[in-house]
Amino acid sequence: MKSARIAIIGFGVIGRGFAQALQQKKKYLKELGVELNIIAVCEVDGSLVNEKGIDLEKALKGELKKQSDWDSIKAPVVIEKHKPDIVLELTPGNVKDGEPGLGHIKKALSNGISVVTSNKAPLALNYSELMSLAEDNNVKLKFEATVGGAIPIINLYQNTLKINEIRSIYGILNGTSNFVLSKMDEEAIGLDDAVKEAQELGLAESDPGYDIDGIDTAVKVAILANSLMNRKVSFRDIKVKGIRDVTPEAIELARKHGYSIKLIGDVGNLEVSPRLVPKGDPLDVSGSLNAVMLDTDIAKDITIVGRGAGAIETASSLLSDVLEIVG
Amino acid sequence: MKSARIAIIGFGVIGRGFAQALQQKKKYLKELGVELNIIAVCEVDGSLVNEKGIDLEKALKGELKKQSDWDSIKAPVVIEKHKPDIVLELTPGNVKDGEPGLGHIKKALSNGISVVTSNKAPLALNYSELMSLAEDNNVKLKFEATVGGAIPIINLYQNTLKINEIRSIYGILNGTSNFVLSKMDEEAIGLDDAVKEAQELGLAESDPGYDIDGIDTAVKVAILANSLMNRKVSFRDIKVKGIRDVTPEAIELARKHGYSIKLIGDVGNLEVSPRLVPKGDPLDVSGSLNAVMLDTDIAKDITIVGRGAGAIETASSLLSDVLEIVG
Repeated sequence: MKSARIAIIGFGVIGRGFAQALQQKKKYLKELGVELNIIAVCEVDGSLVNEKGIDLEKALKGELKKQSDWDSIKAPVVIEKHKPDIVLELTPGNVKDGEPGLGHIKKALSNGISVVTSNKAPLALNYSELMSLAEDNNVKLKFEATVGGAIPIINLYQNTLKINEIRSIYGILNGTSNFVLSKMDEEAIGLDDAVKEAQELGLAESDPGYDIDGIDTAVKVAILANSLMNRKVSFRDIKVKGIRDVTPEAIELARKHGYSIKLIGDVGNLEVSPRLVPKGDPLDVSGSLNAVMLDTDIAKDITIVGRGAGAIETASSLLSDVLEIVG
Repeated sequence: MKSARIAIIGFGVIGRGFAQALQQKKKYLKELGVELNIIAVCEVDGSLVNEKGIDLEKALKGELKKQSDWDSIKAPVVIEKHKPDIVLELTPGNVKDGEPGLGHIKKALSNGISVVTSNKAPLALNYSELMSLAEDNNVKLKFEATVGGAIPIINLYQNTLKINEIRSIYGILNGTSNFVLSKMDEEAIGLDDAVKEAQELGLAESDPGYDIDGIDTAVKVAILANSLMNRKVSFRDIKVKGIRDVTPEAIELARKHGYSIKLIGDVGNLEVSPRLVPKGDPLDVSGSLNAVMLDTDIAKDITIVGRGAGAIETASSLLSDVLEIVG
């Protein structure tokens, strides 16, 4: 039986999704001979801590603060004091300085603790530094969930296509802007109306700029450029143009000629921009789906398509990373 | 430095593609610390054999029979006499009895030799028997190249999505029939004309039945059902309906309603049939591409798209399998 003591930092949508998936996969993990013991769940103002294991069912139901394991101890102290085997850094991203995720990841790695994260910002800003820190401390930093949600794009390459050299990567990496463009195409409506629909469905924030201005896509382009194409870049090096200027007329014209307009992250050229994609092309996926095409030398184009977001879906990537660390 | 002595059985399009890819990846393999030594290349009427390593460049250029390493010794004897570490079984498939591939694979496994194959028929007919034989002899039987050519569908699941339960699998698994249906859609032509175009491009045999009657798809459905869904079936258990009855009128009507007609292998239901796929769906890929959608419980739908055939492309899957055996 292999086992790991895990601290979850950030118990929002993603953290709760992971906890749910863990409950759902109890039997499978047992069969696999793996015991994942959640010894801490850290929030902004304190943490649940229990070396014998947090009761996740209870944590998922009620307010964390009202539970008997609650303590005002915060994540950095939990890391240093309890030294879990794996830290799951699941706090929301912040592309200005990467905090608080960046600090949590550094604290864990420098304490010899492996990290699995869904937090894009720290990696998009400080990829090389964090990878060196992991290497120096002989631990792992895994981040499948940062790009494409449930899509196992990084592990796909590392585990099954590594014989191939990647010439470039093209991706639809933001579900919200893909949903907006698809709606504009299907319903012949303008951007504002499509954004409103996305907001009503909970697919877009009240300020949709992070998605439709291409920032989220640029963050993911930076992570793919570093991790799969060995480029030493920050997301600030990515040239970004979002979809604000895409008109229903442009989409209509594109369709007449057999094309869709998609917001494409072009990793080889470190660029994000709306591009024409032929109908029937593997990247021509509609709705809020994400798609990533690897242009390789032997296998040629390999595209993988799936849910780019969603609490339970993202847990697939997080669990896969955790299991790879547990071994 | 890890190394493996390999015998290639079958030196047609796929075998030559593998040899080419091996030449192309010499530097990469060296960096990886792996030495792949081809000690035999077997054809129907004899073999090149050289324990010091076959000169692949020479083998790729001229007729095998005229080379100094040529011997009338045949594959089964090479396997028993030279005991390579890995046998690459790359002979053409034969869905009647799986021979000669089935015999080669059994001979290798029962001699304690791991096998990598692109030969669908033996696996579609005798999956369980071959897997038991591999297990009993403590060796591996890998077959990524049998389904979807360059698409790493089996290793994708085994290495990156295994935490997920597969509820079903839907696939466009035959490039020829997908090309024919795409042409009928794009050019509003009949099946016979589209098949002719495929034949002119070398995408279809003079007897196109194996592809357009769905037999090839059924063979792959059987392999996926066994390997990814634990079903103990032979390809003879698959209900098959090909695309012969698909008319330009049906395709036109489907398009008007926003659908494409695709030949779908439905692995969960052990069925092959033409089905309606919404435009913009991940399975709506055109041309000779293949696509496989895994319907899973946590990640939900994950689709992978790529070249289903091609000598060099298929070598990506073969090499990936070989490297997994070498470790």
